[in-house]
Amino acid sequence: MKQLIDLTDIPNLNDLVALARQIKQNPLQNKHLGEGKTIGLLFFNASLRTRLSTQKAAQNLGLNCMVMNLNTEGWQIEFEDGAVMNQGTQEHIKEAAQVVSQYCDIIGLRTFATLSDKEADYAETVIQKFKQYATSPIVSLESATLHPLQSIADLITIEEQKTIEQPKIVLTWAPHPRALPQAVGNSFAAFAGEFYENVSICNPKGFDLAPEFTKNAKVYHNQEEALKDADFVYAKNWSSYENYGATTDAHNDWTITQEKLKPGAKFMHCLPIRRNVIATDAVLDSSASLVIEQANNRTFSAQAVLQSILNENK
Amino acid sequence: MKQLIDLTDIPNLNDLVALARQIKQNPLQNKHLGEGKTIGLLFFNASLRTRLSTQKAAQNLGLNCMVMNLNTEGWQIEFEDGAVMNQGTQEHIKEAAQVVSQYCDIIGLRTFATLSDKEADYAETVIQKFKQYATSPIVSLESATLHPLQSIADLITIEEQKTIEQPKIVLTWAPHPRALPQAVGNSFAAFAGEFYENVSICNPKGFDLAPEFTKNAKVYHNQEEALKDADFVYAKNWSSYENYGATTDAHNDWTITQEKLKPGAKFMHCLPIRRNVIATDAVLDSSASLVIEQANNRTFSAQAVLQSILNENK
Amino acid sequence: MKQLIDLTDIPNLNDLVALARQIKQNPLQNKHLGEGKTIGLLFFNASLRTRLSTQKAAQNLGLNCMVMNLNTEGWQIEFEDGAVMNQGTQEHIKEAAQVVSQYCDIIGLRTFATLSDKEADYAETVIQKFKQYATSPIVSLESATLHPLQSIADLITIEEQKTIEQPKIVLTWAPHPRALPQAVGNSFAAFAGEFYENVSICNPKGFDLAPEFTKNAKVYHNQEEALKDADFVYAKNWSSYENYGATTDAHNDWTITQEKLKPGAKFMHCLPIRRNVIATDAVLDSSASLVIEQANNRTFSAQAVLQSILNENK
Repeated sequence: MKQLIDLTDIPNLNDLVALARQIKQNPLQNKHLGEGKTIGLLFFNASLRTRLSTQKAAQNLGLNCMVMNLNTEGWQIEFEDGAVMNQGTQEHIKEAAQVVSQYCDIIGLRTFATLSDKEADYAETVIQKFKQYATSPIVSLESATLHPLQSIADLITIEEQKTIEQPKIVLTWAPHPRALPQAVGNSFAAFAGEFYENVSICNPKGFDLAPEFTKNAKVYHNQEEALKDADFVYAKNWSSYENYGATTDAHNDWTITQEKLKPGAKFMHCLPIRRNVIATDAVLDSSASLVIEQANNRTFSAQAVLQSILNENK
Repeated sequence: MKQLIDLTDIPNLNDLVALARQIKQNPLQNKHLGEGKTIGLLFFNASLRTRLSTQKAAQNLGLNCMVMNLNTEGWQIEFEDGAVMNQGTQEHIKEAAQVVSQYCDIIGLRTFATLSDKEADYAETVIQKFKQYATSPIVSLESATLHPLQSIADLITIEEQKTIEQPKIVLTWAPHPRALPQAVGNSFAAFAGEFYENVSICNPKGFDLAPEFTKNAKVYHNQEEALKDADFVYAKNWSSYENYGATTDAHNDWTITQEKLKPGAKFMHCLPIRRNVIATDAVLDSSASLVIEQANNRTFSAQAVLQSILNENK
Repeated sequence: MKQLIDLTDIPNLNDLVALARQIKQNPLQNKHLGEGKTIGLLFFNASLRTRLSTQKAAQNLGLNCMVMNLNTEGWQIEFEDGAVMNQGTQEHIKEAAQVVSQYCDIIGLRTFATLSDKEADYAETVIQKFKQYATSPIVSLESATLHPLQSIADLITIEEQKTIEQPKIVLTWAPHPRALPQAVGNSFAAFAGEFYENVSICNPKGFDLAPEFTKNAKVYHNQEEALKDADFVYAKNWSSYENYGATTDAHNDWTITQEKLKPGAKFMHCLPIRRNVIATDAVLDSSASLVIEQANNRTFSAQAVLQSILNENK
C-alpha cells in the first residue's frame, strides 16, 4: 500500500482486514519493522481514539512517533494557490507538506470538514493539497469526507462477530445536537458496501449521503423498515449533504433503543457517542454493543496500514 | 501494587519508599521491564513536574509513553450516569475509560478539585469513575483530594535528610492569592502521618483539613506554637474544607521566613511555589530548602509505583 | 560543546558544519549515543520545523524526548528576582530551571522576543535566566535575539550549494504584515559573517540590525545595489531595532522577485514564509529556492549540536 486516503488506495480490502486480524493475535510480531523510521501525526482537530491507537500501532511496529497539534502548536496554514499571504495565514501548505515529509517517513493527518464549503470538503482540499506537496506517504486520520482507519476497524469487528457469511448490515442516521461531518457515514457505507453484499442505509429525507459512497447500499427513509432483521446496526449522525451542513431536531425518535434491535443483533458506533441521544444507555450497556471492541480494533487497522506502507517502501 | 489512588493501594509504605530509594541509586536497573507496554498520561489540568517526572520514570522502565491533554486535544467528558448528552459533553467516561484501557497497560490521570462541589470532590468522582470503567491499572497524577506520588517523594526526601529516627514534622498552611485544592495538604498529612510518629499540622481556624486525612496528626491554629523545634516544615496553601473552597487574605503573616525555622530545620514544598508569598526568597535560596530535591524524587516515587504495578501484572 | 545559545558556545564553526554534513550522510550512525538519556524540548512559542527536526535529531541519537508547551501545559513563569508572586505568575524560573534539569540531560528552549522591552530582549532574559539556574546544558531553539540552529542549517545549505569558495551572500529585509523578532536576521548576519568573507545586509533606513551582530557585514539601504551579483539572497523580515519593535508598510517593493535574482542565484528563507509578501510564488517555486533544503538541514544542525553536547558530557 502506498498511502491511505480512500478505498482506491487499498489493493485488496479482504487481505488488509485479514492482515489486521492476524496482527491482533500478536501485535509485537513486527516490532523491529519501523526501527529508525518516524511517523508524524498531525492534528487539525480533536481526537482521542485516533491519536492514541495510531501512536500505539506505530510503537508496536518500532516506529518513532511525533505528534503535533497544527493549529495550536504550529502556524496557520494557507491552502490557496497564489495567495498573497498578508493576512492571518502564516505558512503555505506547499512548504508545510514538503518540510514535514523530510522529517517523517509516514505522515498521518486529521482534518474535519468545514461543513460550510461543500465543494472544498468533497474535493478533500486539505488532505489532497497535503498529498500533492508531500513526498512521504499520507495516512488519513479522518478527512473531510472519509474515515478509513475507522471503517477498516469496523470491518474487523464485524468479521470477528458475524455468525453468517453475509449478515444484514444497516447504517442508520441518529439524532445529534450539533452539525457533524458525513465522513464516518460515507466511509462505512463505502467500505462495508465494498466488503459485504447486504448493506443498507437509513436516514431522514434530506439526509442522504453523497451518492458516490452509497452505490453498493440500498437507501431507506423509514428506519423501522430498514432495521428489520438487521444483524448489525451501525448508528451515526451526519449533517445534510444536500442542504450542506444543515442539521435537524425533527427526528429525535431515530435514537437507537433495545426495541429496535432484534435478539442477537449487534450495535456499532465509532465513538465518541452521545448517550441517550444516538443510542440509549440500555443498548450501550448491553452485550449487543460492540463500540469498545471497535475502538480496540483501531490499533490493528492502523497497524495493518502502517505495516503495509512500511513494507511497500522497504 | 494494583493501582495508586490512595494509601489503601499501597501494601507497605515503608517498602515502597525503600524501593524508590534503591531505584534512585541506579534508575536504569530495570530498563527492560516495561518493554512492549504502554502508559498513557492523561491530563485534565496543568502540570510540569508530574508530566515530566512520570514520563522520565516510564522511560527509565522501558515503557512507551503517550501523553494527552484531555480537555484541549480530546472530547469533553460526561461523568453523570444516565445523562442525556445533548449539551456540551461529547464522550461519556464509560467509553473513554474502557477505550483508553485498550491502548494503555497503565493509565495515569490528573484531575483537580472543582472547589465548588465538595461532595463530588471528596467522592473523587473523576478518578473513581475512571477506575470503575477502566480495565487497566490507574495511577493518580494528583486527584481532587490527594497527590500520592508527591507524598511518596516527600517521604523519600525526609528519609534522605533526617538526622534522627522520628523528626518533628509540621505541615503548615501558608498564604496564596487564589483558592487551591486541599490535595497536597491532605496527602502529606495522611502519608506522613502513617509513616512518622511526630506529625502536626497548623492552619488558621476555618482551614482544618478533612478529618479523614489528619487522624495521625495534631492540629494547631497557632503557627508559632506548632513550628517550635520543628525539624521539617512543609508549607502549602489550601482553601477551606469547612467553608468549601473559600480562601482568605487575613493571614499573610503565615508566610514562612527564616526566623520561623530553627537552625538546621528543613523547608519543604511541592512546587510550584509563589515566592515571597508561601515562603521568602531567603528560605528558598538557603540550604534549608529541600524543594528541588523533592521534585527530583518525583521520578523515583513514580518509578517505584510503576515498577510495582508492572511486577504485579507480569 | 557545552551548550548552544550564541556563537561563543561553538568552539569551531567550520568543524560543526562539517560534522553536520557528515551526519547527514548517515543519520543513524550514532543511534546509541543518547541511550538512557533524555532531552526536554520546552516551548514558550509556536514552532513547526524546530519542534519536529529537533525531535527527529534526538531520536536519531537514541535520546528520549519530552516535549512540553510551557504556557498552556505548565505554569506561568516569573523571571524577576525578588518578585512577590501574588499576581499572575505561578512558578519562578529558579525552580522551573532546576527542576527540569533533574529530569532532562539536555534542555531545548524556545522563546521569542517581547518586541516591547528592548533591554530585556537583548539581555536574553528568558534563556539566560534559564541557563543561570539550570544544571543541564541549554540549547536555544530560537531565543529573543538569535536562532543558532537555523543559522547552522543555513551554513550547511550554502556549503552544499555554493560553486565558488567565497560566494556573495546578501541578507535582505523583506515586507511582512506583522512585527517580527530580529532573531533570524541577527543570527544569519552573525553566523554567515563569521563563516564567509563576502556577506552584506540590506534593509530600509531605520531597520538596521543590532551592530553587535553585523560587524562582519556591509550594510546597504538600497536593495538593488546590495543584491547586484549576489549568489545567495537570504530574505527575512524583522521589525526595527532602533525604533524597537516598529514595523512599516512603506517598503512593499522589497518583496523578492525573480528579476532581482541573477541567473543561478539561490534564494533562502528560514520558513514559515508568507508567499507573495516576502517573495513571489515564482521565486519559491523555482529551482532557485533552497527553503525546503534549509528546513531539511535543521535535523542535521540539531543533531550535530546534540551529538557534540553528548560527547562533551560522556
